[in-house]
Amino acid sequence: MHRRDFASVFAAGAAFMARPGRARAVAVAAPPLPLVNGRRVNDHLAALSEFGRNPQGGVSRLAYSDADRAGREYVTRLMREAKLEVSVDAAANIIGRRAGTDASLKPILFGSHIDSVPEGGNYDGDVGSLGAIEVAQTLAEHSVVTRHPLEVVIFQNEEGGLWGSHAMTSTLTAAELATVSRSGKTIRDGIAFLGGDPDHLDRTRKRRGDYHAYLELHIEQGGTLERERLNIGVVEGIVGIRQWDVTIEGFANHAGSTAMAGRHDAMLSAARFVEAVNRVVVAEPGRQVGTVGRIQAFPGAPNVIPGKVVCTLELRDLDAGKISALFARIEAEATKIGAMNGTTFSFKLFTENVPAPTDLRLRALIAAAASDLKLTFRTMPSGAGHDAQDLAQTCPVGMIFIPSAGGISHAPKEFSDPKDIENGANVLLRSLLKLDSMALGTPG
Amino acid sequence: MHRRDFASVFAAGAAFMARPGRARAVAVAAPPLPLVNGRRVNDHLAALSEFGRNPQGGVSRLAYSDADRAGREYVTRLMREAKLEVSVDAAANIIGRRAGTDASLKPILFGSHIDSVPEGGNYDGDVGSLGAIEVAQTLAEHSVVTRHPLEVVIFQNEEGGLWGSHAMTSTLTAAELATVSRSGKTIRDGIAFLGGDPDHLDRTRKRRGDYHAYLELHIEQGGTLERERLNIGVVEGIVGIRQWDVTIEGFANHAGSTAMAGRHDAMLSAARFVEAVNRVVVAEPGRQVGTVGRIQAFPGAPNVIPGKVVCTLELRDLDAGKISALFARIEAEATKIGAMNGTTFSFKLFTENVPAPTDLRLRALIAAAASDLKLTFRTMPSGAGHDAQDLAQTCPVGMIFIPSAGGISHAPKEFSDPKDIENGANVLLRSLLKLDSMALGTPG
Repeated sequence: MHRRDFASVFAAGAAFMARPGRARAVAVAAPPLPLVNGRRVNDHLAALSEFGRNPQGGVSRLAYSDADRAGREYVTRLMREAKLEVSVDAAANIIGRRAGTDASLKPILFGSHIDSVPEGGNYDGDVGSLGAIEVAQTLAEHSVVTRHPLEVVIFQNEEGGLWGSHAMTSTLTAAELATVSRSGKTIRDGIAFLGGDPDHLDRTRKRRGDYHAYLELHIEQGGTLERERLNIGVVEGIVGIRQWDVTIEGFANHAGSTAMAGRHDAMLSAARFVEAVNRVVVAEPGRQVGTVGRIQAFPGAPNVIPGKVVCTLELRDLDAGKISALFARIEAEATKIGAMNGTTFSFKLFTENVPAPTDLRLRALIAAAASDLKLTFRTMPSGAGHDAQDLAQTCPVGMIFIPSAGGISHAPKEFSDPKDIENGANVLLRSLLKLDSMALGTPG
Repeated sequence: MHRRDFASVFAAGAAFMARPGRARAVAVAAPPLPLVNGRRVNDHLAALSEFGRNPQGGVSRLAYSDADRAGREYVTRLMREAKLEVSVDAAANIIGRRAGTDASLKPILFGSHIDSVPEGGNYDGDVGSLGAIEVAQTLAEHSVVTRHPLEVVIFQNEEGGLWGSHAMTSTLTAAELATVSRSGKTIRDGIAFLGGDPDHLDRTRKRRGDYHAYLELHIEQGGTLERERLNIGVVEGIVGIRQWDVTIEGFANHAGSTAMAGRHDAMLSAARFVEAVNRVVVAEPGRQVGTVGRIQAFPGAPNVIPGKVVCTLELRDLDAGKISALFARIEAEATKIGAMNGTTFSFKLFTENVPAPTDLRLRALIAAAASDLKLTFRTMPSGAGHDAQDLAQTCPVGMIFIPSAGGISHAPKEFSDPKDIENGANVLLRSLLKLDSMALGTPG
């Protein structure tokens, strides 16, 4: 089989200095390279949207549901059409393998997920999954064979907590396997439902060095690229996430007979807390975010002063130290707020995902690929979690973002322009080919 | 039968000028009058607390529950021991009648309720119910016969929304009767369960002039009397209550990928709203109260910016105009808050109880009775709703408060001192006797 020479492409990529900012013209002319079929990948996206389609638009393709299984059968068919050798690993991830010319080299993994949140959209995960299959299809059509073996991966249950990539990069405990997912099935039962083997997850467990690298194309899920009219986001890393349950205790009493001055109103303290979270988070420059997404008052009647309020606090940033500093400030504010009306605050951390920076060399490759294609780009963090953050424990990872209309995600109105989807798949293809020709050596 | 002459007692009462403030010494010496048996009424209270008793203290004697029915059987027994002729009216209120010397006079009604909130206490309603029976018992023991017929009333389902007194003073609609109470039974089924006749509620319906007056003894359910070390509260009226469902609409989005500046966070607006309610309500002097007791964020996940928050707003005051003015200010604040981050507020009124002032002459009588007994007192509003507010549509009403320890109510820790309970029953007895000798004429 014919194999093109990508040495000059790699040279262009390696010469590029990664830095935040707009695209710069790259002096080295890129040789003609295969391009994806934009029409086809968008048609596939439309076809996939039928599985779990909601009457009001968007999909509910919860992991481990019948719609999930049907969607997986559809993408398996596409993978076979793209000449991939398809298997389901013990963790129920779908793997589509393509041999390379050098069997001593480690595979390059690329892909995403096709499960959705309840009442989700048609782009989150799907764009990266079908984009990866389109890349494989394009390579097959152009008879391009890479040096490295390639593996297209469709991770299972990303939305429920990155379970497919967790299983690939760490050992799931019995308690984790017993977690009940939104489908109603446990993780263990869900894996079996999708054709995995929950009793032999060790067979799918990867160690450092097992992959050359991992690449993922995804929609931004924010409004930055659209607002700045840019084509591509070169992801600097996946932000760290900490989530707390916050309990505010006051004293429940009759809302009619208890004077304003005599109240220990947990709701009032909760309100001051939510306002303080916002104030602290926006007080300094940076892209950190803080959110109170859930709240409940007890006993929760219109005529009873709440004696207790529970809410959540979530902080995200690329810098774990910054998250700690913000939390310390929020905690101090909470103490002051509690003292105002005799209420107390307590915090219980229930999620901690450390920040996962992407590989500096892969950022440079992606930027060079975008530049070759005359696409504008910027570097940016991923505020959302992705399977790439798990893979980062095992191999260098790179992520490519395309714009999300209105920054809307996890909702039926989620949308990315077909041209942006085509651009993203082309950047993925070109990055992959640059990467194939590159010895990564020491991680960046 | 012997009948004492209470003319001089009435003279003392009528001479008293009703005004807020501490007790003043009254110059006219009161003749010897019967006093209740404080030990007995407190023993009855302890016995009643067994019906629906919770392991952790207090009672759950929900209207229409088995505990409610058992408690009603117990008080019916007490009423018969007090020589009352007991019946259950069509609305399932228990009525204990005692003839007067003048059959042309309208009955004086007095009593309260024995149903409780879930996890309630042993005093709310029970003190007034057993206090009323104790008054009847004392009259029987002292062979005192009043001019007016007397009726002790135990209203059914006060806590669920004053249903017994509603049925007595207005016509319940089919929809109201179909309301499901906290017991799980509809109001219709609950009335039948307690021995009433929901198909003939018209038989129990009272019209203006059917009663001479209504008197109710109750615990304060607030901390004012205890804090000011006073024995008795002369209730000026039951505050008006308005309750709204407040809906705040923003835009739900991914909490990781949506920058702080690009958010339309309904939770942040809700927090600013709760704080504004407090600020507006405490900004001016007076005893008005404002409460946000219930809140829910949608979709309600730690990692999603709430696109919608619904909460309740409750305002109470003796002056309906003040409630309107406070609401107008709160609505204006909400509009400003919404404009800050592109969210909108809408308000839907779902409860409106107009303020129910007590009768000025009855306030004077109660104050005089307290004064005769060398008890300190003050006038005060009732922040809580009571059956008396319904009766106020039909006849002059008076209410007597005794202190609540720590202002705690609707909770197992609800407590009133046995001596205060005895005092309250004595004030009720003496007010009743003063009232009996009085022609009320034009309402005050």
